[in-house]
Amino acid sequence: MDQLIAPEGLANVVVAATEIGDVRGDEGFYHYREHSAVDLARTRTFEEVWHLFVHGGLPDSAQLDEFRSVTARLGDLPDELGGLLRTVALLGDERDTLAGLRTVLSAAGPATHVAPLWDSAPETIRRESLRVAALTPTILAALHRIRMGEEPIAPDPDLSVAANWLHQVTGHLPDPVHVRAVEQYLIATVDHGFNASTFTARVIASTGADIYAAVCGAIGAFSGPLHGGAPDRALESLDEIRRHGDATVWAREQVAAHRRIMGFGHAVYRTVDPRSELLRSIAIELGGPTVDQAVDVERQVVEVLREAHPDQPRYANVEFYAGVVMDACGIPRSMFTPTFAVSRVVGWCANIAEQAQSRKIIRPRARYVGPAPH
Amino acid sequence: MDQLIAPEGLANVVVAATEIGDVRGDEGFYHYREHSAVDLARTRTFEEVWHLFVHGGLPDSAQLDEFRSVTARLGDLPDELGGLLRTVALLGDERDTLAGLRTVLSAAGPATHVAPLWDSAPETIRRESLRVAALTPTILAALHRIRMGEEPIAPDPDLSVAANWLHQVTGHLPDPVHVRAVEQYLIATVDHGFNASTFTARVIASTGADIYAAVCGAIGAFSGPLHGGAPDRALESLDEIRRHGDATVWAREQVAAHRRIMGFGHAVYRTVDPRSELLRSIAIELGGPTVDQAVDVERQVVEVLREAHPDQPRYANVEFYAGVVMDACGIPRSMFTPTFAVSRVVGWCANIAEQAQSRKIIRPRARYVGPAPH
Repeated sequence: MDQLIAPEGLANVVVAATEIGDVRGDEGFYHYREHSAVDLARTRTFEEVWHLFVHGGLPDSAQLDEFRSVTARLGDLPDELGGLLRTVALLGDERDTLAGLRTVLSAAGPATHVAPLWDSAPETIRRESLRVAALTPTILAALHRIRMGEEPIAPDPDLSVAANWLHQVTGHLPDPVHVRAVEQYLIATVDHGFNASTFTARVIASTGADIYAAVCGAIGAFSGPLHGGAPDRALESLDEIRRHGDATVWAREQVAAHRRIMGFGHAVYRTVDPRSELLRSIAIELGGPTVDQAVDVERQVVEVLREAHPDQPRYANVEFYAGVVMDACGIPRSMFTPTFAVSRVVGWCANIAEQAQSRKIIRPRARYVGPAPH
Repeated sequence: MDQLIAPEGLANVVVAATEIGDVRGDEGFYHYREHSAVDLARTRTFEEVWHLFVHGGLPDSAQLDEFRSVTARLGDLPDELGGLLRTVALLGDERDTLAGLRTVLSAAGPATHVAPLWDSAPETIRRESLRVAALTPTILAALHRIRMGEEPIAPDPDLSVAANWLHQVTGHLPDPVHVRAVEQYLIATVDHGFNASTFTARVIASTGADIYAAVCGAIGAFSGPLHGGAPDRALESLDEIRRHGDATVWAREQVAAHRRIMGFGHAVYRTVDPRSELLRSIAIELGGPTVDQAVDVERQVVEVLREAHPDQPRYANVEFYAGVVMDACGIPRSMFTPTFAVSRVVGWCANIAEQAQSRKIIRPRARYVGPAPH
């Protein structure tokens, strides 16, 4: 059989066709279906974009009302999972929120009698997708509240996803300016090509397993330090630079020591990351001393990276301003990556539903390089 | 950037180098490191092979004693997970045992304060690998026992993995003939190339996430009907054929209706599946009417498939005789795929440890085929 040797990490290897969206790394442009993702973030609500991912198009106003009424109650935690969620919350600490989400969603599959994708009609998969995405913020916020010694707050059907999220995490009704800032962040981060968590979800879905199996795998990949785990560390870099005093000197020290500067560089973008541009402008609208510092640090770090790698310039990525925006909206650092999960789960579910249609297992090969067998 | 368009499902695409083992599909041969897997199943204990996967070589007798004493207590469920395991057992039914394993292992990561692979020394990863693999049979058997209304049985440090498994699942001290049959099955199914669950584990490990994140994803892929879920359905086919009366006529009916015959055909083997050969001989040693029927049915189905696909003969795969052997050893059907997980988790962990060394994320591309964005 002819074999194809792929480059390490499957870099630049096209593994499937998709109608969900695309990332044009050379142009600094990405889109969801036929819509620019940045335009959607600027002009639409999270619910409209969620509808776009699940149903394939933006809703008209009647469809949006219907969508809101369907999803409003899907975020209520099933009663039989309440005790388990409390147990899970107290097993770990604030670094374990994603692992806690994984555990509770893993239990939610059997608790809701989910069927394998292989045996499910597209309508059933859509319904399960909505439930998984609606449960995600409820579970994440409840884990956080219980660990803080507070009671979880049930989702309010009259609030938007973004407003509910801020309410459930912070415990108070949020400022509409913060709601809109977080909403734009959520819209901008729903999907982004075949990143490791999305690809994991698709590999699992390709076996015909159920949607919870696929999402639990995606959460695992997402929890990896090379993937979803950097917005809080980008903010920690800002703290470090503040203590250090000089961003340029600090950045040169990192480069000299071959240390990765969190929040800069991206696997796909060869130019500015459009998400970073969007989030910078949102941050500037929000204002404040951390935002001023971030804009200043970005300029200096990009310059140092340009000197260090003239042929391969590195720009601020989505994580650099994500932390700044979330911080300005009152989200605690331990909930930055969980906030990212609230939107990305919508992207995972769309990818799972699409992969389920192909009914072909993803099963690559390995090349054995050890001693010959005897 | 140059892109490489891979065939659907990454069929025949080599995605990584490995020293763990290889499957030679054209020869009907597979090996673990430099040892024929079938020879290992015939001549070694499961613990020796487990050592081979974790430490890279077969143990001498002092190393084996040390390995047994290290692993003997790692299978005890941490106290803080006991209540959670009971809750999980009662959330689903007998089809949800793998999902239950996923939930309990997902909780075990934070409960044992596991560190990301990215921050872990190889020695730490080895230790965690042993713990995950040792906990797996304990959790699976306990879920089964609780659902049956029985008390879980703790692993007995004086028994082998295979004897403990049969003891914990069936509730009585097993016949040594059954122990050895199951042990050979376990050895034969530890690893088998980059199947979907192993590949899932490696994608997650490539993000630097922790070993529990990677194993939970692997369990999800493994639960898919196209992957790990067939040994019980192969035995159901035998039931169906018994009711039908004529295996050849039954098989022709399946072929005419384009129905998949469970337990036949494999993605990689183009000749007899060596695992099936091994398991047939084990089954014949065990004897009994189901074994006699299975041998007869195999012959007839292979012949019908040869007539139907003369250029692409299909043979019995690992699942066909796996069910027959487990049934003869007293394992209930709902625990067939979980038994497969008891061995395969050792393979996943070795793949996770190997992938963690590369420190390069697996991040492929997609090809957008939807309407052009505007």
